[in-house]
Amino acid sequence: MLIVKKFGGSSVADATCIRRVAKTITDSYKEGNKVVVVLSAQGDTTDELIEKAMEINPEASKREMDMLLATGEQQSVALMAMAIEAMGYPVISLNAFQCNIYSTSTYSNARIKDISTERIENELENKNIVIITGFQGINRHLDVTTLGRGGSDTSAVALAAKLNADICEIYTDVDGVYTADPRVVKNAVKLNEITYDEMLELATLGAKVLHNRSVELAKKYNVNLVVRSSITNAEGTVVKEDAKVEKMLVNGVAVDKDVARIAVIGLKDEPGVAFKIFSLLSKAKISVDLIIQSIGRSDTKDISFTVSRNACNDALKVLTENKASLGFEDITSNTEVAKVSIVGAGMATNPGVASMLFEATYDEGINVKMISTSEIKISLLVNEKDADRAANAIHDKFITEDLKTRR
Amino acid sequence: MLIVKKFGGSSVADATCIRRVAKTITDSYKEGNKVVVVLSAQGDTTDELIEKAMEINPEASKREMDMLLATGEQQSVALMAMAIEAMGYPVISLNAFQCNIYSTSTYSNARIKDISTERIENELENKNIVIITGFQGINRHLDVTTLGRGGSDTSAVALAAKLNADICEIYTDVDGVYTADPRVVKNAVKLNEITYDEMLELATLGAKVLHNRSVELAKKYNVNLVVRSSITNAEGTVVKEDAKVEKMLVNGVAVDKDVARIAVIGLKDEPGVAFKIFSLLSKAKISVDLIIQSIGRSDTKDISFTVSRNACNDALKVLTENKASLGFEDITSNTEVAKVSIVGAGMATNPGVASMLFEATYDEGINVKMISTSEIKISLLVNEKDADRAANAIHDKFITEDLKTRR
Repeated sequence: MLIVKKFGGSSVADATCIRRVAKTITDSYKEGNKVVVVLSAQGDTTDELIEKAMEINPEASKREMDMLLATGEQQSVALMAMAIEAMGYPVISLNAFQCNIYSTSTYSNARIKDISTERIENELENKNIVIITGFQGINRHLDVTTLGRGGSDTSAVALAAKLNADICEIYTDVDGVYTADPRVVKNAVKLNEITYDEMLELATLGAKVLHNRSVELAKKYNVNLVVRSSITNAEGTVVKEDAKVEKMLVNGVAVDKDVARIAVIGLKDEPGVAFKIFSLLSKAKISVDLIIQSIGRSDTKDISFTVSRNACNDALKVLTENKASLGFEDITSNTEVAKVSIVGAGMATNPGVASMLFEATYDEGINVKMISTSEIKISLLVNEKDADRAANAIHDKFITEDLKTRR
Repeated sequence: MLIVKKFGGSSVADATCIRRVAKTITDSYKEGNKVVVVLSAQGDTTDELIEKAMEINPEASKREMDMLLATGEQQSVALMAMAIEAMGYPVISLNAFQCNIYSTSTYSNARIKDISTERIENELENKNIVIITGFQGINRHLDVTTLGRGGSDTSAVALAAKLNADICEIYTDVDGVYTADPRVVKNAVKLNEITYDEMLELATLGAKVLHNRSVELAKKYNVNLVVRSSITNAEGTVVKEDAKVEKMLVNGVAVDKDVARIAVIGLKDEPGVAFKIFSLLSKAKISVDLIIQSIGRSDTKDISFTVSRNACNDALKVLTENKASLGFEDITSNTEVAKVSIVGAGMATNPGVASMLFEATYDEGINVKMISTSEIKISLLVNEKDADRAANAIHDKFITEDLKTRR
């Protein structure tokens, strides 16, 4: 088998970690597999480099920042190759130049365009274990780019796609994808399989197991993804198109506490008001998540929306500065809220989900402040203090009960 | 003018140093020059990376070691570019891939074969200050190589040669080339000019201002080299073919204390004995410097030679292990010796130099243990405790007196 394995920064943080990962890699090689490994920068390396840069120029260009940050992965791959050499296996490290990982030109947030895999395939042919820098590419000027947060997952999936790998294993500090964060929801269970779409929704909801761009890419090229532990030998979760979702209505419950709610009250009930608000926020590079528009008193309306907490003050500032042109009466914010979401491919065709959801929150006496739905996802906004309780109640209602019935 | 400037690791050790160098660079750019800058890794970065590697694999391959170490220079150039951006000047950093610095394949000690300067010339054409990683190249497999100790000097000279630069400025922590180390010889004076050959001899003798490979290259391509201070604005020393050597007999006095003397006593007076000894040492990768063969008692002979101190025990071991086949009576070593050398293009045609040299040491009551001469150099081996005194006496005799006469 041709296997692509990706390990994150915490898995290669020091010599001990590196040796443990080297063992995992060589174990797989010993079984007769061709092994390609993608690594992130060690532990805090990236943060340390950013700090160095900030000291010199807080407004450094992204081009030079990428040039700087890309050294972190190059160090990881060289050190890993050394560890594998010490164990007596043939190995070679390669950076983005050497294996032609071509990307778009958008520094700090580039997308992989193509990879010419000749060098990698030659090295595999020569029986080498191949260790490749994640997170980075080169653009058409041969300048170094980085792929943004979670970029190494994307590197691994792109390599797996181009190399026609049998499997792409993403090693993390958890042993797979759970129906909810086990630290929050006591009955959370590990999923054996999940579809790309569900994984995408969970990734977007902040489950943080996989970067969503990597899941999109895996879906597009039908890459067999496995999320598994870098520490234990547990089986992990397979992400694939035809995942047997165990016929569960809901596959995951996610809690996102990085949420602030802003309410703009007493807007004139005219066309274009919402457009004005959200185009102002967009120009200020503020991402908006949930949006609700409700009828206010007499001929006015209210618009509420959520943003991440660190964007809350900026959003208030932008809107207040434009109070005159927007013509609202008041603006309020609340940072003590959280978003609880459920994801499941089965929901689209099941009209009873919303009512079950409200039953669960009602039974727990939890007030739902906002609600937003998509094909395979429902998100609720609740007070932060209620969020974990809501997640547990919803998880029990949909997943724990469901599993009981079928076992 | 097109100027290549090279700064070493201590000149870019931290944010303050980087800003100071950025000022030097932009001052030159403001005067209307095209400026190409070559940098080493910051301060202790290389040592720290080696330490990391040693922890993982004390016998790491040189290929992976080069992959690791090359990140140091890439960090330097990115940080320097950021500092120059902060000052408002157009700038771009480039690594060995980006400016096609092709080298031989000998990892850790590669030589530059060619540089295709198209990218650099384009960036200069676009009015950019160009900051380039020193010390590294890529071989024909596109693998990263490093150029060995002092390699950044070589990078700078090679770039100056290929770019037809008007001048190549090597910035160091001294303000030029001195007639002797000012910390040792109180009357040492800075030279305004020196020939390539003299600079080469001084470099080989441990003057450590310039790496000798860089001087060889400068001589070959007739590059105008200037050694100057990275801190003061002093004029520095010009190294060039037709240097006005101020008609001095001797241009430099160097002291090397990393010397051990080994004497092999009572060898049979047969052909091939010396060959056997030095081929054994060569196989053990021990470099021999001075060699003297003298007639011993009756039909035997003695051979003395010097090695660096850390090679002394290895040399003794190799020879003692082969005592039977070499057939000597005794072997002794002395690590309390030092080499004092004088260099000057004028010496070759002046038969009085040796006698002046012995007069100087005789007047100081210093015992000379070995002597070795070349066209433009004479080296003496003395007891370590006498070395500094010998250097001062010789310097006064040849250089201070000489300068007095001519001023």
